[in-house]
Amino acid sequence: MTEGSDNAGAVEPVIADLRRFRMDVAYDGTEFSGWARQPGVPTVQGVLEDALGRVLGHRGAEHSVEVTCAGRTDAGVHARGQVVHFDSSVAVPFRPLQYLNHLLPDSVRARSCVEVPQEFDARFSALSRCYQYRIADSVEAQDPLRSAFVLTRLRALDIDAMNRAARPLIGEHDFAAFCRRREGATTIREVLELDWRRTEDGLAVMTVVSDAFCHNMVRAITGALVAVGEGRLPQEYPGATLASGTRSSYAAVMPAKGLCLERVDYPAGVVELVRQAQRARRMRELP
Amino acid sequence: MTEGSDNAGAVEPVIADLRRFRMDVAYDGTEFSGWARQPGVPTVQGVLEDALGRVLGHRGAEHSVEVTCAGRTDAGVHARGQVVHFDSSVAVPFRPLQYLNHLLPDSVRARSCVEVPQEFDARFSALSRCYQYRIADSVEAQDPLRSAFVLTRLRALDIDAMNRAARPLIGEHDFAAFCRRREGATTIREVLELDWRRTEDGLAVMTVVSDAFCHNMVRAITGALVAVGEGRLPQEYPGATLASGTRSSYAAVMPAKGLCLERVDYPAGVVELVRQAQRARRMRELP
Repeated sequence: MTEGSDNAGAVEPVIADLRRFRMDVAYDGTEFSGWARQPGVPTVQGVLEDALGRVLGHRGAEHSVEVTCAGRTDAGVHARGQVVHFDSSVAVPFRPLQYLNHLLPDSVRARSCVEVPQEFDARFSALSRCYQYRIADSVEAQDPLRSAFVLTRLRALDIDAMNRAARPLIGEHDFAAFCRRREGATTIREVLELDWRRTEDGLAVMTVVSDAFCHNMVRAITGALVAVGEGRLPQEYPGATLASGTRSSYAAVMPAKGLCLERVDYPAGVVELVRQAQRARRMRELP
Repeated sequence: MTEGSDNAGAVEPVIADLRRFRMDVAYDGTEFSGWARQPGVPTVQGVLEDALGRVLGHRGAEHSVEVTCAGRTDAGVHARGQVVHFDSSVAVPFRPLQYLNHLLPDSVRARSCVEVPQEFDARFSALSRCYQYRIADSVEAQDPLRSAFVLTRLRALDIDAMNRAARPLIGEHDFAAFCRRREGATTIREVLELDWRRTEDGLAVMTVVSDAFCHNMVRAITGALVAVGEGRLPQEYPGATLASGTRSSYAAVMPAKGLCLERVDYPAGVVELVRQAQRARRMRELP
């Protein structure tokens, strides 16, 4: 038997036409080896597909429901607003979302599930992804109730310096210097928003919104900006690195712990969903 | 050798006069058997006194630093704004608050430490304590990153009904119906604020401020109000129970998990600190 997207249909007799569903998911990534299913290790996709398979009654198949996500988060990265889609022939498949949550580990919660047009693709229809990176850079900001998703640093961060250093990264650029390159894929991305702010409870929080991110990109950018914020590298460093187009080892890629996928935005109408998916697919392939 | 508050002085030669310090502490109460030190189980007071003893160099004594807190939280209850005081003869005893935090488990953080007048008493000088109780009563509100301090309930809470039911509890009353009675202690308390609100991320959050709380009081009140909010008991129930003066078994005491000591308020001046301590000591004793 070959693996493929029609796997579920081969196992279960088709009751009705396949319908498409969008599900919003939150997870504490601490104990997971990332999003993508891998044999023998806990992954978010793995536990989600297994639980969903049971709710939808696709028994007997090892991999019966295939779930596609908006952002394939790395090991240890969290999500509050991950979006996935999947297809199901079961008419009202998850009426009790609570039953699905009951089957999931406490670290993963399905927050909503709605039927969407077939044109909706969690990955390719997305207009943008929003990530946040949270740092407690003072003892006052340390909160044991949030320690699972906030990184502790001992040196105080200069928010203004980081925002000045971030400016050259905003806009459409080749982010090769901040990415792990992948054969046949472009590293051009459009960063729509990139800013640091100090929250009421004393955290330094970076918000970054981009049409898409290459592998490691957020954590590499964060590392460069934190090096500036701690006074270890000059303010010009991130912009100069971007322009150079080659990875530099002066600033480290930041740990996964502080990173969280907060939100994914999609167009409203079906026509726009299709257009955006075509645009995204084209953009990810090198000309 | 007898145990007592001058224990530390007996072990360590007095370098200078005893000075008093206020320390603000946050903790994830999940793994602790409450605040108060008990042999053989992990308690917040236990780990804090042990770590503080090492920082202050009171070696060799089993219980060398005595820490007094504003609110003796139960097993599983959290704190963001616990306040403690302790006395030390060491001149600059905790310059590196980071060293103390290094010795503490990740679930306990000292957030600040300042020298205060001898008149400051974390327990008796407190004007009021503020607790919050957090409930996720919808799937949308569930967030695995906050699951350690948010209780999940399956039925949606009626915030307005809970606020109406809460009204008779505000003010100075005998809260015997919501307390575990203790010999020789009054159950009269003044509730300054008691309200529920819906947060941006969909949680139902109760804020309660009182001059002081009897044992179990917040969780018993929360239980009565949640029973109203879920439509299981009439709106008049909490007020009627208060008036009856006897505990009722219709509403359960809520689990510790959702409860957090958020803040303790103190008077600003030394005279007021002394007056407040005298007032509080008098008030806690039955006439």
